[in-house]
Amino acid sequence: MKRFNKIAIIGVGLIGGSIGLAIKNKRLAKTVVGICRRKVSAKAALKAKAVDIATLSYKKGLKNTDLVIIAAPVGRIVEIAEKVAKSSDGSLILTDVGSTKEKIVSHLERSMPNHIEFVGAHPMAGSEKSGVSAASKNLFKNSICIITKTKKTDEKAFNEVKTFWKKLGTSCKILSPKDHDDFISFVSHLPHVAAIALTNAANPGSLEFASTGFKDTTRIASSNPNLWHDIFIANKDALLRALSDYRAALEGIERSIKTGNTTALIDLLKRAKTIRDSLN
Amino acid sequence: MKRFNKIAIIGVGLIGGSIGLAIKNKRLAKTVVGICRRKVSAKAALKAKAVDIATLSYKKGLKNTDLVIIAAPVGRIVEIAEKVAKSSDGSLILTDVGSTKEKIVSHLERSMPNHIEFVGAHPMAGSEKSGVSAASKNLFKNSICIITKTKKTDEKAFNEVKTFWKKLGTSCKILSPKDHDDFISFVSHLPHVAAIALTNAANPGSLEFASTGFKDTTRIASSNPNLWHDIFIANKDALLRALSDYRAALEGIERSIKTGNTTALIDLLKRAKTIRDSLN
Repeated sequence: MKRFNKIAIIGVGLIGGSIGLAIKNKRLAKTVVGICRRKVSAKAALKAKAVDIATLSYKKGLKNTDLVIIAAPVGRIVEIAEKVAKSSDGSLILTDVGSTKEKIVSHLERSMPNHIEFVGAHPMAGSEKSGVSAASKNLFKNSICIITKTKKTDEKAFNEVKTFWKKLGTSCKILSPKDHDDFISFVSHLPHVAAIALTNAANPGSLEFASTGFKDTTRIASSNPNLWHDIFIANKDALLRALSDYRAALEGIERSIKTGNTTALIDLLKRAKTIRDSLN
Repeated sequence: MKRFNKIAIIGVGLIGGSIGLAIKNKRLAKTVVGICRRKVSAKAALKAKAVDIATLSYKKGLKNTDLVIIAAPVGRIVEIAEKVAKSSDGSLILTDVGSTKEKIVSHLERSMPNHIEFVGAHPMAGSEKSGVSAASKNLFKNSICIITKTKKTDEKAFNEVKTFWKKLGTSCKILSPKDHDDFISFVSHLPHVAAIALTNAANPGSLEFASTGFKDTTRIASSNPNLWHDIFIANKDALLRALSDYRAALEGIERSIKTGNTTALIDLLKRAKTIRDSLN
């Protein structure tokens, strides 16, 4: 892979900051610039050494940039991409790290000008923590990064984004935006809904008896509310389908408990154990 | 606390084995005997050094025993207690480690003969692993042990069981059997149902994208199917009530996503975050 001249990261929080640290660690670009919304974030990004330069100006940040990574909440990715289109003129590859893909990719494939090639990406790493102070150069190591591909995706840009994420230590998987949203609703968005509902449903008196089981199951209920609001809304259709499947699975267990159907209940428990055991 | 002459542990698996190791580590008894169902379990208990003596005979195991701990699945506790009653004549304290309490305690308070004082207990520690080979003398360290108390509970026996669990490193909490079952249904049994349903609902194609979020949320779906079948059935009433509250919490989130009600959705996310953040 060629070394990039300048990579711009828009939004230098946990994910953007970790990307910056990893780029610098792997020397994948001559310069890493962070484009921030507020002065305090720019200062924090510099302090964490996640970027070489931090600026609030898109014009300045995008000058001579060959790769731009939008590391903002899904609800803001499209508006940021359009600001990138207006503030740049040299050709560049644009990618994102959004947890939902169909709406973002189809919108940007229509709206981006010729000098910008957009490739959707979703590195599957994170933390219930947030902010550049929690960033780590190893956040993506041994994790999965999904790169989306459609009929309109530029082959060269796609390969560069894929190679970039490989260099950051991820295993890259290729999916259509729709398959991405369907699959991720089951393994990420639905578990968040389940964890939030478990936490909110718990009788307050019961919480002092919470042990590792409850704590592990609900860990992700501590995630950033605004971020997850955006994700739930952006992936609404796939998430509502997954929720409906989840409700059916819950009802199956509930019915077998209510009727004391030992065979059915043991079958459901064994099925879950077999699937879950296969994941480690 | 007086040192016990002989403590018998009936069922030397993960929990029973860890109790044996902890008793020996803390020198709480002159002898620890394991009463096992099968020769192979007796051998494994001895090999793990979880007990000093292992036997298949209740008569032999219970001779001169002052404390008996039933560490068997909840579905078997009552029948084992009745076997203890038949196979012993000296006075002894009987306790258990069952994850449900109301049915067990009310049954044994009626059926135990005068020479046996029963005190219900539930150490809130465990693992998705099972068997004496996974036992550890530190399993209970810094965990919670719930001891149940009713009008019929003998004060002296209650205090001895409480002191015993304190010596094993747990923080003891006192609850009525009904409160125990209600509270534990929320923080233990319901999360198991949720994890099993999440695992079973997941689109098979999605599993290769499972990351830490999914893995943590579903870890306990790997638990022993027979053990959890028994727990779900034994705590049926409280669990069905908790499931109904859980369904309402899920529906609240689902409705706010469906209607795009940002205020309601953010409120639910924030509420969960506040509660979950308070637990660490």
